[in-house]
Amino acid sequence: MTQTSCDLLITNVLVLTMDEEFNRYPNGAVAIGGDSILAVGPEAELRAQYAPAAVHDGGGKVLMPGLVNAHTHAAMTLQRGLADDRRLDVWLMGYMMPVEKEFVSPDYCRLGTQLACAEMLRSGVTSFADMFYYEEDVAKATAEAGMRALLGQTILKFPSPDAGSYEDSLAMTRDFIERWKGHPLIVPAPAPHAPYTCTAEILRASTELALEHDVPLHIHISETALEVENSRREHGMPVVPWVKKQGLLEAKVLAAHCVHVDEGELRTFKHYNTGIAHNPSSNLKLASGVAAVTKMLDLGLNVGIGTDGPASNNDLDMFEEMRLAAFLAKGYSGDPTALPAKQALLLATRLGAQAMHMGHLTGSLEPGKRADLILVDLNKLHNLPAFTHDPDAVYARLVYAAHSHDVNDVMVNGKWLMRDRRLLTLNEEELLYAADGYARRIDHFLIEREGSVLRKLVAIGGAEQGESFEVQVKARLTDDAQVLAVIESKAVTVIRSVHYHQYDTYFLFADAAQGRLRYREDEFLGPDGKSTHVRARLTLTGPAKEDAFDSVVLSRSRYLAPATYSLRFYREYFNPTGEFTIEKDRRRWLVVFHGVEVFVNLDRLLKPEGDGFFVEIKARTWSRRDAKEKALVMRELLALFGAKADQILTQDYAELVAGA
Amino acid sequence: MTQTSCDLLITNVLVLTMDEEFNRYPNGAVAIGGDSILAVGPEAELRAQYAPAAVHDGGGKVLMPGLVNAHTHAAMTLQRGLADDRRLDVWLMGYMMPVEKEFVSPDYCRLGTQLACAEMLRSGVTSFADMFYYEEDVAKATAEAGMRALLGQTILKFPSPDAGSYEDSLAMTRDFIERWKGHPLIVPAPAPHAPYTCTAEILRASTELALEHDVPLHIHISETALEVENSRREHGMPVVPWVKKQGLLEAKVLAAHCVHVDEGELRTFKHYNTGIAHNPSSNLKLASGVAAVTKMLDLGLNVGIGTDGPASNNDLDMFEEMRLAAFLAKGYSGDPTALPAKQALLLATRLGAQAMHMGHLTGSLEPGKRADLILVDLNKLHNLPAFTHDPDAVYARLVYAAHSHDVNDVMVNGKWLMRDRRLLTLNEEELLYAADGYARRIDHFLIEREGSVLRKLVAIGGAEQGESFEVQVKARLTDDAQVLAVIESKAVTVIRSVHYHQYDTYFLFADAAQGRLRYREDEFLGPDGKSTHVRARLTLTGPAKEDAFDSVVLSRSRYLAPATYSLRFYREYFNPTGEFTIEKDRRRWLVVFHGVEVFVNLDRLLKPEGDGFFVEIKARTWSRRDAKEKALVMRELLALFGAKADQILTQDYAELVAGA
Repeated sequence: MTQTSCDLLITNVLVLTMDEEFNRYPNGAVAIGGDSILAVGPEAELRAQYAPAAVHDGGGKVLMPGLVNAHTHAAMTLQRGLADDRRLDVWLMGYMMPVEKEFVSPDYCRLGTQLACAEMLRSGVTSFADMFYYEEDVAKATAEAGMRALLGQTILKFPSPDAGSYEDSLAMTRDFIERWKGHPLIVPAPAPHAPYTCTAEILRASTELALEHDVPLHIHISETALEVENSRREHGMPVVPWVKKQGLLEAKVLAAHCVHVDEGELRTFKHYNTGIAHNPSSNLKLASGVAAVTKMLDLGLNVGIGTDGPASNNDLDMFEEMRLAAFLAKGYSGDPTALPAKQALLLATRLGAQAMHMGHLTGSLEPGKRADLILVDLNKLHNLPAFTHDPDAVYARLVYAAHSHDVNDVMVNGKWLMRDRRLLTLNEEELLYAADGYARRIDHFLIEREGSVLRKLVAIGGAEQGESFEVQVKARLTDDAQVLAVIESKAVTVIRSVHYHQYDTYFLFADAAQGRLRYREDEFLGPDGKSTHVRARLTLTGPAKEDAFDSVVLSRSRYLAPATYSLRFYREYFNPTGEFTIEKDRRRWLVVFHGVEVFVNLDRLLKPEGDGFFVEIKARTWSRRDAKEKALVMRELLALFGAKADQILTQDYAELVAGA
Repeated sequence: MTQTSCDLLITNVLVLTMDEEFNRYPNGAVAIGGDSILAVGPEAELRAQYAPAAVHDGGGKVLMPGLVNAHTHAAMTLQRGLADDRRLDVWLMGYMMPVEKEFVSPDYCRLGTQLACAEMLRSGVTSFADMFYYEEDVAKATAEAGMRALLGQTILKFPSPDAGSYEDSLAMTRDFIERWKGHPLIVPAPAPHAPYTCTAEILRASTELALEHDVPLHIHISETALEVENSRREHGMPVVPWVKKQGLLEAKVLAAHCVHVDEGELRTFKHYNTGIAHNPSSNLKLASGVAAVTKMLDLGLNVGIGTDGPASNNDLDMFEEMRLAAFLAKGYSGDPTALPAKQALLLATRLGAQAMHMGHLTGSLEPGKRADLILVDLNKLHNLPAFTHDPDAVYARLVYAAHSHDVNDVMVNGKWLMRDRRLLTLNEEELLYAADGYARRIDHFLIEREGSVLRKLVAIGGAEQGESFEVQVKARLTDDAQVLAVIESKAVTVIRSVHYHQYDTYFLFADAAQGRLRYREDEFLGPDGKSTHVRARLTLTGPAKEDAFDSVVLSRSRYLAPATYSLRFYREYFNPTGEFTIEKDRRRWLVVFHGVEVFVNLDRLLKPEGDGFFVEIKARTWSRRDAKEKALVMRELLALFGAKADQILTQDYAELVAGA
């Protein structure tokens, strides 16, 4: 009998192929030639058939396809543990994005990816799907480490760490794809971040790019209920129909999360062969919800499992994810037979590769596919004894009791990357030393920032740093009759007037020098007293008055910004030591008096409840001299309103209330 | 300055005390004297204060209280992976209990516990709460391993592997408690298994025993929704009020699971200082639900975390449980700030010890408590880099990214049990060899059983193995008039009659020699045609007829049993290769004809729908000769009913339908 030559024969293993028939060979072997699998089967047969250049004795371990991490942001290893137990917006806008804006660079991405590759290889991952910045550098690091990956270059509708505009991102992505397409390990892809962080134009351009080069497209879809709610409000439809309308699904899409999608949307995915990456740890940790994995599988979708980035997990351990995927499917359906171990392992291997549109290359041990495989030692204390009465028990051992640490050897593309738990292409010590350097700098940045309310405000892009003087005079009145009479008289000319309900929340800080942060929500009232619209603003005011001319106060309202996040966000982000609220009913006029434009506020305190009225006269100016002149006019108008000297106040509302 | 002597000073560690104030010492140390902690604080202070006999350099690791596994069945390591992805009843009644009945012995419990201790020590557990059989032997094994434990001797209302009656169990438990009370490591306890597996009398007797000896009481409470539903039906109230009524909560109770308890029940627990063991993996894997942990904590309850037994987990890894507890609390509440890492770690240490009513001994590093502690190495690739801007980040590193494998050293009661991941009191190799022996025998038992429907039936205690002959004659009639006329005539004497709707489900097996298993449900109908009650029975019949006298069939209805489980249970347990159902309307009379008692069934097929009627005449006998005589009488009666020779059938319904 003539024998065929091959480079390597791995023997003495229990082979789990994870192919369509779930073929398994208890005394099995795999023959490898170059980067590919030549044959899989019983050891005796392969020994008869092949004359291998080398034989690797697997020592009775399990030989199976390498795990496929279907969604991650690898370089975020450098942000692991940066902020935990926070709400998604605080975590993302308050910590991740400011740090990325400050630190992300080609070097950062390269190092972060190397660290991630080291961690993933040590836990048996051979392929992953990435989405981050400077993906060119991510690709170099991944290829050098020897791993297989679908690498998505992020495109956003706002400036990102690696591009000032979306046109720059798109050009960069095109270059990246052209340079890396056809690489034996790397599949480049455009990654429009998510429908809500992209415009319709970005989605369309990304799709065209993917179609033009026949590469996949990586995107986040329907991660949170809020995203779907916003899509319904803005587009009149949920997320999937909307991206479909932009043509996005024409591309070979890998959609991460898909927590909040209905059955109709899943059927759309099925029609377009869209792949899904399920991220159980991240979705639980950020409380986004739980994806309907069993429903997806029932519909025949390709569902993979991802760790998501190590900043929201906080590791890249696919053994944990597999187990959690199986547990959650059972717990959420109330059916303990849902997503059995064998199927969970399928998600983490072949289906994951198919979801990444790389099923022809990897995900199962079949002749013609690349040799991406791992040897797992199940003969560990925490996984013994072992029962043989049920041949499928080995899947349960892998999913329910094995640890990432039980992975002994890893091969990608026919090349060993880990032998006996020793990495062959990465120097862990050097990587950790460099990572520590970044961590120290990020720590410094955050410690500085956490010490300054202003820096925190700037970090979330909220502060307009232009300063202006505010000139103000104020009095307490027993009734509003005289003010209204003057307003209606010819003494003043009313330019415009509004009526609103003002809700002020003041955040106080232990260090009074930090000032006070006020979150102000104005609920505008129509002539019928009904609410017409709401505006929210954020103001950081210093503790000290700049100057005072008699009873006229000159202060700097230092930082002012539209409040784009919620009060809850600011509370969790700024973490004030104290807080109080003031509610008032305000009628406000912009009037001209003696040729000077001033605002008149006629206020009634609602909370804390107060007797009588307050009248304020205010103006803004850039000039200290001008302020002085305006002060004189304002004093005169105040007298006209009937304010007596003992009714005049120099404190603002916060001081009045805090003093009470 | 005078120095106090101490046995050991552990230095160069970040100490997390997990005490009331969460005190932590970055350059900390712990002084140990005998079995106890003398002092915890900054290293410099302790070095000045103490003259230690020995110093252990902790190498910059985290020093923290050992983890507390608040609920397990340790010896079930020997059942790990025995059956997975099954429904609770199939798993428990179909696999766990039959195997336990066959194999559990003092030796089994000793070995299983030793394996569990080895696994728990390797993952940083220093104390656990157990519930199993032969707890005397569990105690010996645990004490020899050097671990601390609350050991509950199981008491049940049916025979258990270690006792033929509950009185035996109770006497055994009393002996056990008397022998082990006051042991430095072991706290003995009665463990009435669960309210639904105990009687009120057992609960009361167990409580009295616990109160008499001032020991805790370990019990499962409200694990599944079904348990609560049954309690409401049987006792008119949920589980907690019912056990309270039996006085159970007067004891120091550790209640495992508590998945389905309402706020009122939790308040009852608070009143009685009942401890709770939350088992996230097990509750998800068996799809029991998710306990309301944050609500429990809000009410000030002592909630610990347990792995549950390794047959429903499938390991004893408290790092996984902590992480899952934190993730689930967030995922289920929709609030990512729920159960932050610091609190999750508290559950796994001090609160767990308090839930076990052993908080005065262990669970935190405080002077006077026993020296139960672990050193954890966080400087691993999967847990780096590390940030310092938030001092609480170390808790997130421990809960979200650390693995059990990162535990380096373990001390219990002042004695090292693991150093540099080497166990000092247990020989893993010997244990695994012995465990393999059990696994082979259990495999053999299950393989034999799985090959025989009869053995499977016997294994779940369902078969009455007495055999009997059934004599039967049957005919197809176009109408029922003549049968009814004969029944009402003086030719026969009617002893009794019933009317029911009969639903038969037949399970078929690939190996026809196994016979057919029929699950039969009779819905009895009153004179008004309304359902009065339902009876379910299970019959295993052989494939071949024993004999036939002309058209009279003699067969053995070999195994008959009341069907105590659901059809779904039997389907999942017996896993038939085929299945079909027959539904019929049956009027049935017991009559005397020519001095012989026979049953007459007048049937109309409803599913599959059929024309006309069937009449069956049946009798049972132990004698083949008697069968022959009865056959003659039955033929005569059949003729009286008007059955023509060509209407007479020898097939049973299953054959008629299967043939159609």
